[in-house]
Amino acid sequence: MKLTGLGIAAAAAVPVVGSGISVNSENETPSKQPDLFGIGIAGYTFFQVPVDKAIEIMKKVGMTHLSLKDVYMPMNSTQEQITAVMDKFKAAGINVYTLGVIYMKSQQAVDQAFEYARMAGVKMIVGAPNYDLLSYTEKKVKEYDIKIAIHNHGPDNPLFPNATDIWNHIRDMDPRMGICIDIGHTTRDGADPSVDMERYAKRIYDVHIKDVTGSTKEGRTVEMGRGVIDIPKFVATLRKVKYSGICSLEFEKDMKDASLLQAGIAESIGYFRGVLAAG
Amino acid sequence: MKLTGLGIAAAAAVPVVGSGISVNSENETPSKQPDLFGIGIAGYTFFQVPVDKAIEIMKKVGMTHLSLKDVYMPMNSTQEQITAVMDKFKAAGINVYTLGVIYMKSQQAVDQAFEYARMAGVKMIVGAPNYDLLSYTEKKVKEYDIKIAIHNHGPDNPLFPNATDIWNHIRDMDPRMGICIDIGHTTRDGADPSVDMERYAKRIYDVHIKDVTGSTKEGRTVEMGRGVIDIPKFVATLRKVKYSGICSLEFEKDMKDASLLQAGIAESIGYFRGVLAAG
Repeated sequence: MKLTGLGIAAAAAVPVVGSGISVNSENETPSKQPDLFGIGIAGYTFFQVPVDKAIEIMKKVGMTHLSLKDVYMPMNSTQEQITAVMDKFKAAGINVYTLGVIYMKSQQAVDQAFEYARMAGVKMIVGAPNYDLLSYTEKKVKEYDIKIAIHNHGPDNPLFPNATDIWNHIRDMDPRMGICIDIGHTTRDGADPSVDMERYAKRIYDVHIKDVTGSTKEGRTVEMGRGVIDIPKFVATLRKVKYSGICSLEFEKDMKDASLLQAGIAESIGYFRGVLAAG
Repeated sequence: MKLTGLGIAAAAAVPVVGSGISVNSENETPSKQPDLFGIGIAGYTFFQVPVDKAIEIMKKVGMTHLSLKDVYMPMNSTQEQITAVMDKFKAAGINVYTLGVIYMKSQQAVDQAFEYARMAGVKMIVGAPNYDLLSYTEKKVKEYDIKIAIHNHGPDNPLFPNATDIWNHIRDMDPRMGICIDIGHTTRDGADPSVDMERYAKRIYDVHIKDVTGSTKEGRTVEMGRGVIDIPKFVATLRKVKYSGICSLEFEKDMKDASLLQAGIAESIGYFRGVLAAG
């Protein structure tokens, strides 16, 4: 029995994720070790749905970890506004474990991001500071003792196309400067996310999981299992490197239709859990 | 690359089910053999939604095999009515591979079931004739050359609680008298569906897949992977016995809310595909 990705609040409603308990001891296989990593949702998934619907969908699929995007909590929010939003998720049993993706194009934006995280009481930002702001970002990481996991965006964007590029920029910086590997954008950039996960594991602090239709810029998000990414191989890699963070589903399809979005998230999370149970 | 459970019509929209194609040849594992069995939906799932919504949900999750329940096509339908419904599914790319579950409490009901299947052009019925009608059913099986897969209903119903009971009644009858094993009801009856699948494989012609909250009468359907059934073990058994029929999801939860129903089906099918991809 595994409780991957489920916190206390959801455990009552969704007790078993994983291979389940056989009702007959005959042919019983030995129990597997629980995974060190959890499963969550990356907030951009909910870019076009209201906060109550986002919470409802997370409950439906039994997810309790959220990487919160600024859609429900603008970057210029006051402490009161931030506390109100964080309390709303907490009351729903949802753990906002990081904030982002936050793009930072100026020192003021870096300052704002770290203040925002401090006010939210969150110990990690998923972000993308411009290259020339990395040293300044490192100063803030030290000052606030808040980690940053820099997010790769594939061939769409000259800023951090892949984990190798992030690694090359941060390898000699404070170890709290890390990587949020996005397996979809990694694939769209022509790289194998399992290879990058293994190479840069010690500085990978967050993972965006998804599936994509192709390994080029034209690749688009689809329900996990329907695309080109070898998810069983990626899960085997997560286990091999003993990844202990969260794998957050970023589902960038059917974003305007909450019912279709919910079904796509459900199918993807179901697939990921099935891979975990059988792999 | 596998195309498990997907027919031609869906293949364009949902090309890849299974482990996907790695975008990098490094660390490539050898391709697995495609599964001999397919995935579908058991029609009782759609007991409370209109036919167009049922078709929409099947398309959403990429399902093309349906075990049609009489809700859209009453048992006393004329040939014209049956043809119209069958054509509707055919036009949507959905293969109605069997009809049922059909309960038969009289000789007239047996006669009607076989006429109904003949008019639909379907070569198998999933049914439950009363025990004292089994000899008469066997006569009809021979006369029509239409198979019957008898469905087990667990502890709720004295008629065919489990596959062992069905086997004991049909073992010496025509080989076209077979079993539709329902893994949920089997579990609720205290038996292990993997054990029964292996024992009676040569006469199992259809499978209802699902997950349940417990291994007693009180066990209720939940999204696959959240319950007590060891799905990876069951999939390993399907492969071991070279099952070549359809595994149809019978999702008996949230049946009155099409959006929740769709999400539950999506999560379950996703989970099953994940198990297939990783197992």
